[in-house]
Amino acid sequence: MDEAAERADLERGLLALERQGVRPEGYRAPSWEPSRRTFDLLAEYGFVYDSTLMDDDRPYLLETRAGTLVELPPHWSLDDWNQFMYLSEPRSGPGTVYPPSRALAVWREELEGMRRHGCLFVLTMHPFLIGRPGRVEALRALVEYALGCGEVELVTGAEAARRALADPDLPRRSLRPVEPDPAIYPDS
Amino acid sequence: MDEAAERADLERGLLALERQGVRPEGYRAPSWEPSRRTFDLLAEYGFVYDSTLMDDDRPYLLETRAGTLVELPPHWSLDDWNQFMYLSEPRSGPGTVYPPSRALAVWREELEGMRRHGCLFVLTMHPFLIGRPGRVEALRALVEYALGCGEVELVTGAEAARRALADPDLPRRSLRPVEPDPAIYPDS
Amino acid sequence: MDEAAERADLERGLLALERQGVRPEGYRAPSWEPSRRTFDLLAEYGFVYDSTLMDDDRPYLLETRAGTLVELPPHWSLDDWNQFMYLSEPRSGPGTVYPPSRALAVWREELEGMRRHGCLFVLTMHPFLIGRPGRVEALRALVEYALGCGEVELVTGAEAARRALADPDLPRRSLRPVEPDPAIYPDS
Amino acid sequence: MDEAAERADLERGLLALERQGVRPEGYRAPSWEPSRRTFDLLAEYGFVYDSTLMDDDRPYLLETRAGTLVELPPHWSLDDWNQFMYLSEPRSGPGTVYPPSRALAVWREELEGMRRHGCLFVLTMHPFLIGRPGRVEALRALVEYALGCGEVELVTGAEAARRALADPDLPRRSLRPVEPDPAIYPDS
Repeated sequence: MDEAAERADLERGLLALERQGVRPEGYRAPSWEPSRRTFDLLAEYGFVYDSTLMDDDRPYLLETRAGTLVELPPHWSLDDWNQFMYLSEPRSGPGTVYPPSRALAVWREELEGMRRHGCLFVLTMHPFLIGRPGRVEALRALVEYALGCGEVELVTGAEAARRALADPDLPRRSLRPVEPDPAIYPDS
Repeated sequence: MDEAAERADLERGLLALERQGVRPEGYRAPSWEPSRRTFDLLAEYGFVYDSTLMDDDRPYLLETRAGTLVELPPHWSLDDWNQFMYLSEPRSGPGTVYPPSRALAVWREELEGMRRHGCLFVLTMHPFLIGRPGRVEALRALVEYALGCGEVELVTGAEAARRALADPDLPRRSLRPVEPDPAIYPDS
Repeated sequence: MDEAAERADLERGLLALERQGVRPEGYRAPSWEPSRRTFDLLAEYGFVYDSTLMDDDRPYLLETRAGTLVELPPHWSLDDWNQFMYLSEPRSGPGTVYPPSRALAVWREELEGMRRHGCLFVLTMHPFLIGRPGRVEALRALVEYALGCGEVELVTGAEAARRALADPDLPRRSLRPVEPDPAIYPDS
Repeated sequence: MDEAAERADLERGLLALERQGVRPEGYRAPSWEPSRRTFDLLAEYGFVYDSTLMDDDRPYLLETRAGTLVELPPHWSLDDWNQFMYLSEPRSGPGTVYPPSRALAVWREELEGMRRHGCLFVLTMHPFLIGRPGRVEALRALVEYALGCGEVELVTGAEAARRALADPDLPRRSLRPVEPDPAIYPDS
């Protein structure tokens, strides 16, 4: 998509949500595959936070040409797609169906590590995948486990973004590419 | 296949079964891949139920141009194919062989969720896959577990369809496509 | 390979083994992919048994144009290839490395089923795969478990073939294709 | 890459490390895919050891045209790539995300076998894969387990190479290809 197409696509999505009375504050790129201008457009259209980039396990500020977004980093390991997606032809996913308890193990072990290291646990769910009887019970078990930890708080993405913005020490990053060292790459 | 070919294929199958003294009441599309006219043909040829569509976890009525079928929804997660299919070249399945206890875990966890949410558990079996000594013992363990639950009943597809038809509140659906909203997609 | 090539290949293999003082009684087709004439050649060259066909879990007699072989059926589920083969490019196997205890679970569960149903457990091993420290310990655990069962006997392929030949009730099969029913397929 | 390109690539890497104050003693080929001249170049540029070849589970001496290297053999089964790599398009890895406890099981079972058989355990880590909260805790558990064994020593690659060189019985190998037996392959 060129810029006009990406802009039209974003506007069409906002219109569809508006007709349902929804004004979104956060965004996630489909398949976690943003273009070079996605984040500029998000800031321009008033989004507060994004959850697409996997380069951290805590929130940070993302500078764009149209202002600053809060980034709430997701990760493949906290996603129900690679746990439950199954299609044989054209093949998608691992080619088999795992028990729900296996996804619970993946997510709970990451939650344990994140508690120790003080991180933000961002779970990505697809309703047509997690919305099966055995799987939704595994999700319930995860939520009950998290609630039982005591110090784990469950908040919305918008609330996580607000708290991040209130933190004066939040790291600040941009998407500028790194220049190669001319002493090592003289021709670049 | 065009309509004539699909019709001839269905008639050939019915003839082969008739010569064995079998008159089927239910149908499942090969690889769960029906054509747009499969369900019309099933109703025309007097089938009572189908078990091909994965959009629910309880029975519903499926309207066709030739009458109404009962749909008994299957699902990838209740299928021995993705648990046990193995071919290296051309590759089919996950590329490895899992222990039978793993399929038992997948199916038992889904059965547990379905008991809680009151669903229909439809298991799909391929005799050349499940019919190995270790696997058939896992299937036996699943059946014994289900029988031991107390409230789980084991019935044939035909009996499940009869009970569904006797339910006055059974949802009713058709396969008509959803029209796009012209306010959002003006050119469609 | 045409017949001459397959014959030359077999003779070259026999010569290489003869120079090591080995005269093989059994054969397994590479990748379990025989040609239509492989079994005729095996009988002609004096082999006693083959272990290539996966259509049973007990020995049977296989009729060929050059005499009768004993078939000792192997199976994907009793093979270390799909448990341990790993190559990323060109991809081979499941694309990940499993713990040795997982192969032990696959093989032990099949052994348990085979004890119940009175079958022949034929394990296929590739030395470059199973010959790793952790894996060979899993194999040791399987052998120790089998020995501890009491009624499980460990014998060579040649001994299993001799016992099968001594059984007057051993099933007898050939590889002739099944003819289609002309009432159902009139044009075939 | 031809020899000039491989040489330039190696020099560029050494220069980049030198500017950080690092003079490497060991080398591992990217993706464990060396060229026919990689080991000659390593000896020529003064490397002490390599860790690329998977044909043993103990150190050995590798003869090259420019001198002798110590080989510290790695293996797919002691690598975080096949445990944690995930990309859906273009697909890389097994197509799903495993729990960290699964990698711990793979590595610990190999460590157990290696203790019994007296081997060198060489773990390959990619920081962007193992550097997730739940995974680094699994790595910590592995290290703590190894330390608790008593007789397991944790040393650097350089130290392992020095000890190997001090062993007068260390096997010595070269990469010369095996010639086919002319009695079996008369035309080769």
